[in-house]
Amino acid sequence: MWFCVVRSSDLGKPGAFKTVQVGTESILVTRARSGAVRAFYNVCRHRGATIRTEESGEVKRTFQCPYHAWTYDLDGKLIAAPNLTKMADLDRVEYGLVKVHVREWLGYVWVCLADDPPSFEDDVLAAVTERLGALDLIDNYDVPSLEVGRRIVYDVQANWKLIIENFMECYHCATIHPELTEVLPEFADGYAAQYFVGHGAEFGDEIQGFTIDGSAGVDRIPGVSEDQDRRYYAITIKPQVFVNLVPDHVILHRMFPMAVDRTVVECDWLYLPGVVAGGKDLDKSVELFHRVNEQDFEACERTQPRMSSRTYAKGGVLVPSEHHIGAFHEWVQDRIG
Amino acid sequence: MWFCVVRSSDLGKPGAFKTVQVGTESILVTRARSGAVRAFYNVCRHRGATIRTEESGEVKRTFQCPYHAWTYDLDGKLIAAPNLTKMADLDRVEYGLVKVHVREWLGYVWVCLADDPPSFEDDVLAAVTERLGALDLIDNYDVPSLEVGRRIVYDVQANWKLIIENFMECYHCATIHPELTEVLPEFADGYAAQYFVGHGAEFGDEIQGFTIDGSAGVDRIPGVSEDQDRRYYAITIKPQVFVNLVPDHVILHRMFPMAVDRTVVECDWLYLPGVVAGGKDLDKSVELFHRVNEQDFEACERTQPRMSSRTYAKGGVLVPSEHHIGAFHEWVQDRIG
Amino acid sequence: MWFCVVRSSDLGKPGAFKTVQVGTESILVTRARSGAVRAFYNVCRHRGATIRTEESGEVKRTFQCPYHAWTYDLDGKLIAAPNLTKMADLDRVEYGLVKVHVREWLGYVWVCLADDPPSFEDDVLAAVTERLGALDLIDNYDVPSLEVGRRIVYDVQANWKLIIENFMECYHCATIHPELTEVLPEFADGYAAQYFVGHGAEFGDEIQGFTIDGSAGVDRIPGVSEDQDRRYYAITIKPQVFVNLVPDHVILHRMFPMAVDRTVVECDWLYLPGVVAGGKDLDKSVELFHRVNEQDFEACERTQPRMSSRTYAKGGVLVPSEHHIGAFHEWVQDRIG
Repeated sequence: MWFCVVRSSDLGKPGAFKTVQVGTESILVTRARSGAVRAFYNVCRHRGATIRTEESGEVKRTFQCPYHAWTYDLDGKLIAAPNLTKMADLDRVEYGLVKVHVREWLGYVWVCLADDPPSFEDDVLAAVTERLGALDLIDNYDVPSLEVGRRIVYDVQANWKLIIENFMECYHCATIHPELTEVLPEFADGYAAQYFVGHGAEFGDEIQGFTIDGSAGVDRIPGVSEDQDRRYYAITIKPQVFVNLVPDHVILHRMFPMAVDRTVVECDWLYLPGVVAGGKDLDKSVELFHRVNEQDFEACERTQPRMSSRTYAKGGVLVPSEHHIGAFHEWVQDRIG
Repeated sequence: MWFCVVRSSDLGKPGAFKTVQVGTESILVTRARSGAVRAFYNVCRHRGATIRTEESGEVKRTFQCPYHAWTYDLDGKLIAAPNLTKMADLDRVEYGLVKVHVREWLGYVWVCLADDPPSFEDDVLAAVTERLGALDLIDNYDVPSLEVGRRIVYDVQANWKLIIENFMECYHCATIHPELTEVLPEFADGYAAQYFVGHGAEFGDEIQGFTIDGSAGVDRIPGVSEDQDRRYYAITIKPQVFVNLVPDHVILHRMFPMAVDRTVVECDWLYLPGVVAGGKDLDKSVELFHRVNEQDFEACERTQPRMSSRTYAKGGVLVPSEHHIGAFHEWVQDRIG
Repeated sequence: MWFCVVRSSDLGKPGAFKTVQVGTESILVTRARSGAVRAFYNVCRHRGATIRTEESGEVKRTFQCPYHAWTYDLDGKLIAAPNLTKMADLDRVEYGLVKVHVREWLGYVWVCLADDPPSFEDDVLAAVTERLGALDLIDNYDVPSLEVGRRIVYDVQANWKLIIENFMECYHCATIHPELTEVLPEFADGYAAQYFVGHGAEFGDEIQGFTIDGSAGVDRIPGVSEDQDRRYYAITIKPQVFVNLVPDHVILHRMFPMAVDRTVVECDWLYLPGVVAGGKDLDKSVELFHRVNEQDFEACERTQPRMSSRTYAKGGVLVPSEHHIGAFHEWVQDRIG
């Protein structure tokens, strides 16, 4: 499946790289000299050492394994190794870094570790169409052109599937999200924005912006339509991305499952470049969903330890406003099955 | 099997609760409005969140799950949930908290997680009769009426079965319990108080009370018979309770197995209410068995890591004064089947 | 297999002991009254307690288990236990500590946990002969007579097999060992000292001694031959010993595998007794291989986490100068077989 790993702008120029964990593998994502993004298993072909152990960095022209100095160019090709000339039978392409499929979309790098990846259109884009009704509704926000105004990383002691289930329903909103239901009063009824195709939850009458206290936000994204103004849209792209659209910013979550009961969540708040460059105060804007995140993750952590209880062996109950989670359960069982 | 979890007086009034770990399950023990004790799996029926994460606390009338606000009364019945009225088909009793069998005895709450629990009489009471010869010998101490003068919790890096074996034999007493054998000279011979039916180990001639230095104890429990005065009785109630009877107090151990090599032991020192209320100095009284506990648990921790040695694959040797431990081994193997 | 555990001189006199971990077992190594070295499972025959929990110490005449006071002499025979006289049927030899096979060589104690150990000559000595061509080449260094000038213990987060593979090849030397290749210029070519039978790597022309800066070392070991002077020899004795010979000292590594991804390495620097007694400054001498150790172990730790990558499932590539590592792989697979 497609896995959203890195904000493209974090790979500013050729040689910039990030390392990310995808399942149990370490993946090295970088930008080639052509400007294209590349991703490789972060494993030297010679004896298996980790090519780069840092989370991010920058090389000039090559990745050199620090163990025996095998050297690969930014396209992954083996270009040098001590005594390489004496090893006539060593094919430099065959012994290049093992490539991973890459796509860029929404200004993020998505990778797929499968040899034969599913169609990005059928998998990722279809999830958005299914939710919003049409792709151009997200295009209006021109997400690739936005800039990261804030990034917060959460280390959650819960399985990633609990975090998805939590994000998909709003039956819990009235109980644990007082600030959010203040801004989006219809959330108090328990129906998530993603329950109805194309629906965005409307701001309350007194609400001026998607902020912690309902005060005005920052500059509105120009492409946002009249319909989309004063509304919040949430999209789940299985297995690990949440996109949240509001008139003046986009909040994008990437989940990295680290263990059966641990998930790292990286959350980006994206604004118009002028807003970020202008140094506008983003605190009230960021605080609203940061608080939602903390409330949600605490609920997931409270749920995780009981998943092995014999009383939960057959699962719980899905109330009417949660029935769509059943589809997620079927999706999971299909993939495991 | 029956598991002794909470001192009844720790649930002072309706709504007081404690959470305890029984095997891998979290159990919520509370007192209903009728005054009866109730125990439930600490798991919300809706989506499996932990109802209460604290060790103890008090609610007014209900337990409300903090995730989606499903609300249960003190008898476990589901009495409220957001939009519950719209969920006609949801049976409020069927979706109440899952109950656990409960008994009170000796002033403690005992629970059993089996659907069909064994007879409390055949299981728990029979263990006492088998040891003392008759139940009224323990009734003399009127344990329910006593109060907790001191509670110490030990975190032992050893399997619970090693702690039971240790408690059952006194062959180690001369080696590691100098203070105890001073008070109970016959323990130096290695025969535990529980080796002979009905036998209680006699205090030494110079000993005035069951204290660290043999000085006088506090007020004697009125029901203690002439025979029982100046004697120490020890009872093992498998799988996790030890009861120790001396003329002026009762020491009761509850073991909570946390992992294959870790056991939490809660030990209560119980005295006459007047003794506790009067603020009498209990230090010398408590210190004797506290030291015995520390000596025993250190021995168990020293033994635990070698249990996987190939030289111990067939076990060790039971000397004559330990032969009754063989019956415990058979009992364990029977249950594992 | 034979496992090198303790420097004989660390067991200075009868009753001195060390405890070491060999696989998952704890082994007690001591010196008997006769002066001979003995090794036992560190497990009481009675109920399995650890006889000694310290890393090293000294007893007068016996090992007494602190749990029930079973007492063994320095040859492991059961000589006392409470009430032992009443236990007529308890054979004191049969219930002695379980012995482990012992050999002394190079001034170290080697143990073998197999009931029927392989020939020390075929196993350990043959490894040296195979490497050096003849045993007397190591005898020249008279290793038993040397003294420990420095001991450093490394806790390496890598499997022991990675450490062996690293030690066996020098293809990495040019990349990670600048100081070592300065002293031994031929190492820059990537051929390890152990690649050719009997070959020792020659010091560089300007090099006066095996020190961090090439300055003169300390007193030369008298038996070292003309041929061996100004040369470095490395020997791998599988599964856990490395011996490094230079004219004025010997460096001996013992590896203790602690977990699948953790190995403790004890490294001794051995010098002539007069050098150690004379208080000569050994820092420059020790620093060279200490730095090599740190460089090697960092490389192993960088490699360990990728061993489970699917791209490494079939292993990596062995270049010509590493082909002898293939024989190690076969040896491992034979034993697992």
